[in-house]
Amino acid sequence: MSQKPSIPKGMRDFSPEESSKRNYIFNTIEEVYKSFGFLPIETPVIENLKTLTGKYGDEGDKLLFKILNSGDFLKKVRDESLQKRDLKKISSKITEKGLRYDLTVPFARYVVQHQNEINFPFKRYQIQPVWRADKPQRGRYREFYQCDADVIGSESLLNEAELVQIMDEVFCKLGLKVQIRINNRKILAGLAEVMGHSDKLTEITISLDKLDKMPMDKVLQEISNSGVDNSAIEKLKSFISFGNLDTEDKLDKLKSFLNSSEIGMKGVKEIETLLDYVNNFDLINSISIDTSLARGLDYYTGSIFEVISEEVKMGSICGGGRYDDLTGVFGLKNMSGVGISFGADRIYDVLHELNRFPKNMTVTTKVMIVNFGNEEEKYALKVLKKLRDNKINAELYPDSKKMKKQFSYADKKNIPFVMMIGENEIKSGKYTLKDMHSGDQEALEIDSVINKLK
Amino acid sequence: MSQKPSIPKGMRDFSPEESSKRNYIFNTIEEVYKSFGFLPIETPVIENLKTLTGKYGDEGDKLLFKILNSGDFLKKVRDESLQKRDLKKISSKITEKGLRYDLTVPFARYVVQHQNEINFPFKRYQIQPVWRADKPQRGRYREFYQCDADVIGSESLLNEAELVQIMDEVFCKLGLKVQIRINNRKILAGLAEVMGHSDKLTEITISLDKLDKMPMDKVLQEISNSGVDNSAIEKLKSFISFGNLDTEDKLDKLKSFLNSSEIGMKGVKEIETLLDYVNNFDLINSISIDTSLARGLDYYTGSIFEVISEEVKMGSICGGGRYDDLTGVFGLKNMSGVGISFGADRIYDVLHELNRFPKNMTVTTKVMIVNFGNEEEKYALKVLKKLRDNKINAELYPDSKKMKKQFSYADKKNIPFVMMIGENEIKSGKYTLKDMHSGDQEALEIDSVINKLK
Repeated sequence: MSQKPSIPKGMRDFSPEESSKRNYIFNTIEEVYKSFGFLPIETPVIENLKTLTGKYGDEGDKLLFKILNSGDFLKKVRDESLQKRDLKKISSKITEKGLRYDLTVPFARYVVQHQNEINFPFKRYQIQPVWRADKPQRGRYREFYQCDADVIGSESLLNEAELVQIMDEVFCKLGLKVQIRINNRKILAGLAEVMGHSDKLTEITISLDKLDKMPMDKVLQEISNSGVDNSAIEKLKSFISFGNLDTEDKLDKLKSFLNSSEIGMKGVKEIETLLDYVNNFDLINSISIDTSLARGLDYYTGSIFEVISEEVKMGSICGGGRYDDLTGVFGLKNMSGVGISFGADRIYDVLHELNRFPKNMTVTTKVMIVNFGNEEEKYALKVLKKLRDNKINAELYPDSKKMKKQFSYADKKNIPFVMMIGENEIKSGKYTLKDMHSGDQEALEIDSVINKLK
Repeated sequence: MSQKPSIPKGMRDFSPEESSKRNYIFNTIEEVYKSFGFLPIETPVIENLKTLTGKYGDEGDKLLFKILNSGDFLKKVRDESLQKRDLKKISSKITEKGLRYDLTVPFARYVVQHQNEINFPFKRYQIQPVWRADKPQRGRYREFYQCDADVIGSESLLNEAELVQIMDEVFCKLGLKVQIRINNRKILAGLAEVMGHSDKLTEITISLDKLDKMPMDKVLQEISNSGVDNSAIEKLKSFISFGNLDTEDKLDKLKSFLNSSEIGMKGVKEIETLLDYVNNFDLINSISIDTSLARGLDYYTGSIFEVISEEVKMGSICGGGRYDDLTGVFGLKNMSGVGISFGADRIYDVLHELNRFPKNMTVTTKVMIVNFGNEEEKYALKVLKKLRDNKINAELYPDSKKMKKQFSYADKKNIPFVMMIGENEIKSGKYTLKDMHSGDQEALEIDSVINKLK
């Protein structure tokens, strides 16, 4: 009985071409991370559920992929729970493990668990997939890669500055024009304070975060609905209007607006310091203060970053920020960290849409030798070895099929050169090398072939 | 409330040092695969259970990690099943997806699903983790990597020959001395036929496979117990005794022993052809016929490979074989393939035990600049940029802490050079570069620093 094969919703296969393009993105990011002194770690795909739950909000908890316990999974479930179909109770008894939801929480867990082996400040990068049982849609998958870099154990804003430089450099190398947006959680706290609504910080910032998708009056209405009074809304309006100023003026306005808020002024000072560092770099991409930027408010406590494409509407393709107490939940207090994460899948989509992947990325074979049959094969094997010893990726067609078929294989695989070594070529020691692009052919000795292909 | 962090049984974290060493193994294998014209693909971690179940035997099915359905997972479960605690029925209603158990079955699924886009013969490699809910023990983990290469859509034994060459080359590059063992499933079928017990092929080969762990009389006893008569056991004894001969003599003996079995003689011919190809390569490692080799009998139909270390007792560190009908179960008939898989985790253990990883694998930072405070920092940032532009991995310590602390950080991170750029150095344009290994210091201009570190 044969099955029609398929993969689950939101999951993807990657062809050789797609894999090569993805690897190009991963390698670009990894090389930059390394050049800044970040070291790789890996954590397991499967974590204990108690590590994961409660870290991503109620919504996040619902999106966790949970693993059914092995063996008699009902062992610990009471008859009563089964009768009542008490999903929550049953679930807690039949699953103990889940797939990681991001790389930040596993990293926090790692730092606490291995704190005695770690050399702080710890600069680590991690490029691994994560899983979310989200509704699949454009740009959103159930299995996708995160490419994170974090520095933990240092409060210096120099770390932020270097992360900004990393974002700039990665997107330069990928040939993408982006806008780097920065904000500071303390400015948002200051805003709420000045509005007289420190209690509504979360509501205000969640609504503000929608400013690029929703018209301003709707955003203000939402905030008003959350119980913020009119005079506060007026203050908020003037705050939002900073958005169009240049950086100098924005800082001046922020200072006068947040003057009465200690935490707000601290936020402004942090942004100033960060920009002061960044000014040493000659960034290629633009950097701007965006006071509505709030992402991942739940754990960020200082700087907040976001990168968007200037060329394609795709939402955030990189983001991050500082968190003063990420490891606290696992028992290690006062460990400040700052990190960023590149969304490789969205970056892929942007590069694809702009047709900006380097050409011929999937060529891994430089030359294919045509198979003329038993005797020629053995001779060809020795030639192959010489080519590979000279770091030229090479292959011999495995069967002595029709020439047309062999050439069609090379053509489909984008192999740029095909070499013919038949009876005559073996006698003369000169092999026929065909350039598949131009169609030109020449007869060359092995050393010349190597020189040409190297 | 803080949690004591932990990871599930059989799972592992990898430190920067371990990750770098693992990447060294993956990269070595990948480079060799590429040089032979193999292309990368990736398949999702989560597959439909109907793709996975029934492919690895009953034991394998039990070892699958299954994912609990989202939302109301009990929706499709009947009251009756809950009352009876019918695990099998309930499980089939509450889980539809699982984690992949190996890379071969997902590859077969991929080939069938994408058959119209694939350029056959398809040479693909895939380096990804797999999961098995096995009892963890030395050399056995619940999450581990497989590094597979397969050629599908070609029956030529040239493919086998190239895979042998790949095994030889990878282990040469890793600096490990290994023994490559080959056999052919058709020889095993011929043996059973000559013994007059074709019906007992599975039992005979499973027992034979134990010859390196169990004494011969116990193995023979086991075969006898399975219902094989005495005269057949006598024949088997003479077959086993071939084990110590050299390859030529072994082939002669096999020919006379299997003379009456068509399939057996075909197996001998295939091994001869393979060895004939391999003779063109000047292998560094030894290759030998091992007629007791049976691994993965369930789907292999021709050549069988296994590699063991000559230096450490670790079991098989690479293996593979030919399967004539792997994709049949998914509806694509007559697609012959041959493949190998490197066990990266065991190879890691062997390299570790022999202390044979290259030195200083985890050095990703070549030079650290000491942080002398605000003014020097900004100067240092420009120097950093120059270093990195010259492909020198570099970092600045993020805080102006005590020198001792900064040097200790560099030391623990195995950073080979530390550079001091204080007030005087900035004035003179000559920076103090310290070799952390020898302790030597010199004052150098930036160009000399770059030349020295490059």
